[in-house]
Amino acid sequence: MGKGEEVSNKQVLLKDSVYGSLKETDMVLSRGTTHLKAPQGSKAILVKNIYLACDPRPIWSKGLSNTIDYPIEAGSVISGFGVSKVLDSDHPDFKEGDLMWGMTRWEEYSLIETPKFMFKIHNTDVPLSYYTGLLGMPGLSAYAGFFEICSPKKGEYVFVSSASGAVGQIVGQFAKLMGCYVVGSAGSDDKVDLLKNKFGFDEAFNYKKEHDLDAALKRYFPNGIDIYFENVGGKMLDAVLLNMRQHGRISGCGMISQYNLEQHEGVHNLFNLITKRIRMEGFVVFDYFHLYPNFLDLILQYIKEGKMVYIEDIVEGLESGPSTLIRLYAGHIVGRAVICVTTE
Amino acid sequence: MGKGEEVSNKQVLLKDSVYGSLKETDMVLSRGTTHLKAPQGSKAILVKNIYLACDPRPIWSKGLSNTIDYPIEAGSVISGFGVSKVLDSDHPDFKEGDLMWGMTRWEEYSLIETPKFMFKIHNTDVPLSYYTGLLGMPGLSAYAGFFEICSPKKGEYVFVSSASGAVGQIVGQFAKLMGCYVVGSAGSDDKVDLLKNKFGFDEAFNYKKEHDLDAALKRYFPNGIDIYFENVGGKMLDAVLLNMRQHGRISGCGMISQYNLEQHEGVHNLFNLITKRIRMEGFVVFDYFHLYPNFLDLILQYIKEGKMVYIEDIVEGLESGPSTLIRLYAGHIVGRAVICVTTE
Repeated sequence: MGKGEEVSNKQVLLKDSVYGSLKETDMVLSRGTTHLKAPQGSKAILVKNIYLACDPRPIWSKGLSNTIDYPIEAGSVISGFGVSKVLDSDHPDFKEGDLMWGMTRWEEYSLIETPKFMFKIHNTDVPLSYYTGLLGMPGLSAYAGFFEICSPKKGEYVFVSSASGAVGQIVGQFAKLMGCYVVGSAGSDDKVDLLKNKFGFDEAFNYKKEHDLDAALKRYFPNGIDIYFENVGGKMLDAVLLNMRQHGRISGCGMISQYNLEQHEGVHNLFNLITKRIRMEGFVVFDYFHLYPNFLDLILQYIKEGKMVYIEDIVEGLESGPSTLIRLYAGHIVGRAVICVTTE
Repeated sequence: MGKGEEVSNKQVLLKDSVYGSLKETDMVLSRGTTHLKAPQGSKAILVKNIYLACDPRPIWSKGLSNTIDYPIEAGSVISGFGVSKVLDSDHPDFKEGDLMWGMTRWEEYSLIETPKFMFKIHNTDVPLSYYTGLLGMPGLSAYAGFFEICSPKKGEYVFVSSASGAVGQIVGQFAKLMGCYVVGSAGSDDKVDLLKNKFGFDEAFNYKKEHDLDAALKRYFPNGIDIYFENVGGKMLDAVLLNMRQHGRISGCGMISQYNLEQHEGVHNLFNLITKRIRMEGFVVFDYFHLYPNFLDLILQYIKEGKMVYIEDIVEGLESGPSTLIRLYAGHIVGRAVICVTTE
């Protein structure tokens, strides 16, 4: 393939209008063409996408996404984090052959016009796909949310929802490394098994088998919860509020249970924020990219020492993207969902 | 009245069982007797109550109040903040004749067994009743909640609910003194008038006349809200969440709209905490009493300079307590509700 050559480019688009829950048929595979060239004077880069991450996010109507950093926007090629190889660059920081991770799109080739959230990959003695997960956005989310927002202390009681997911599994391991007691919830017995036997959570439970989440939390946290790493929202948050300890911290990372609802569920127990002096803080990983170098050093060291493991569910080919995203919302993915676009 | 003399002691009790909303008939006036003596070796003090505050608080079932700092507990003499005079003291820090403010009870004479939250009053060239309000717990709540929790900056957009209440009127004045733009909501046109013309709020509105709180907030905050001082909870909080700006702060001081409900209303818009990176933090004034001396110096200076005003609704006699508390929950009090127990 020569530079500037026009090639065919498979893409996954979200239709203009999405009603109700996201369905596989809301996404279409199309075939466009792309010049393998970053226009001169554009400061853009032209990349070949190798791995693409499947992230649970709100579906956003066309043109309304300006209030949220990282939506799935109707009427566009789906955007998302990925690992890519530079084929052509008009940007001084990147050159042909560089590997990088950051914001790209669900297609074979992408012209990245403003490579603001793109990081060069220097360390390749780990699986390259890890840069969509443990060494990428989910890893940094876990790091920022847990250490910066939750201010953990040794011996504290930590609860993580959606704990086997891309972010949760890392938070749990951070908590154990800090000397905390950590319990995770997940949506299948297989995931619960992973949490306890692979990621080293002290306890874990299948929330789908609990008809009373409050009672479940009281069973695992007879003394209450100091830190809640929030990934799901809704009923789980309501039950957690009843079980928080005084001066507890809740970091809001995601609310996957709510993204596909027309109206979000009501949370009734917020008065606990006052009586228990709880700090609840939402965060967006984009505000913490300046911490990435520190974070990366720490994680690479942990991986080298065998202190950090990571589970991925890698599917082959862009064609698998839509069904994988649907499986993710349905809770049928174990670990980080990744699409392998090419093995070349 | 001699020391140790047994005197009759009017008291207001809450009945053992309270169902549904608090009613005037849930409170009874009874007449006990009290020895005007602090038992030797008890470290207690015996006080005559002069002013008693009416505070909106959750009603708590008998024996269940251990999870909350300052409830109205069924089956007991109603507890509350007040201004009192020491008649006898077995405590080294207090002596006969001292004036003090702090936690006492709705009765003529109280034996304060652990005067932990009692402050000696040194400055008496302000109305003594102010120590139930501007110079007491509500003042310190406004100070801690606004300055410590909300970290205000000059020019920020501040919204205060229940803004003409004991705490709200002070928060609004703090916000103006900081150079913020401040809007308050209240439940009558008279209160709205006070907010704008007495307390110097930039704008104010009667929430009962707004069928769409979101639209009302958008009218007063076209650029959004940086700081929300939360006194009411429920629907107002939901509307505020839609109008917060990025990196906004919400301090949870009270949720008066919810205290009389069997189940608290659901709050649906919490996902905004994440997308807008909002910090929402509850607080209880008891954690901030160490700041009282700094706070008092500041406010006395402001009063002297004419920079701080305060409105009270003072009723005469313990007998007026129950109806005043009901008027408070119904939103029929303007300013700080105070019971004057004695003028002697």
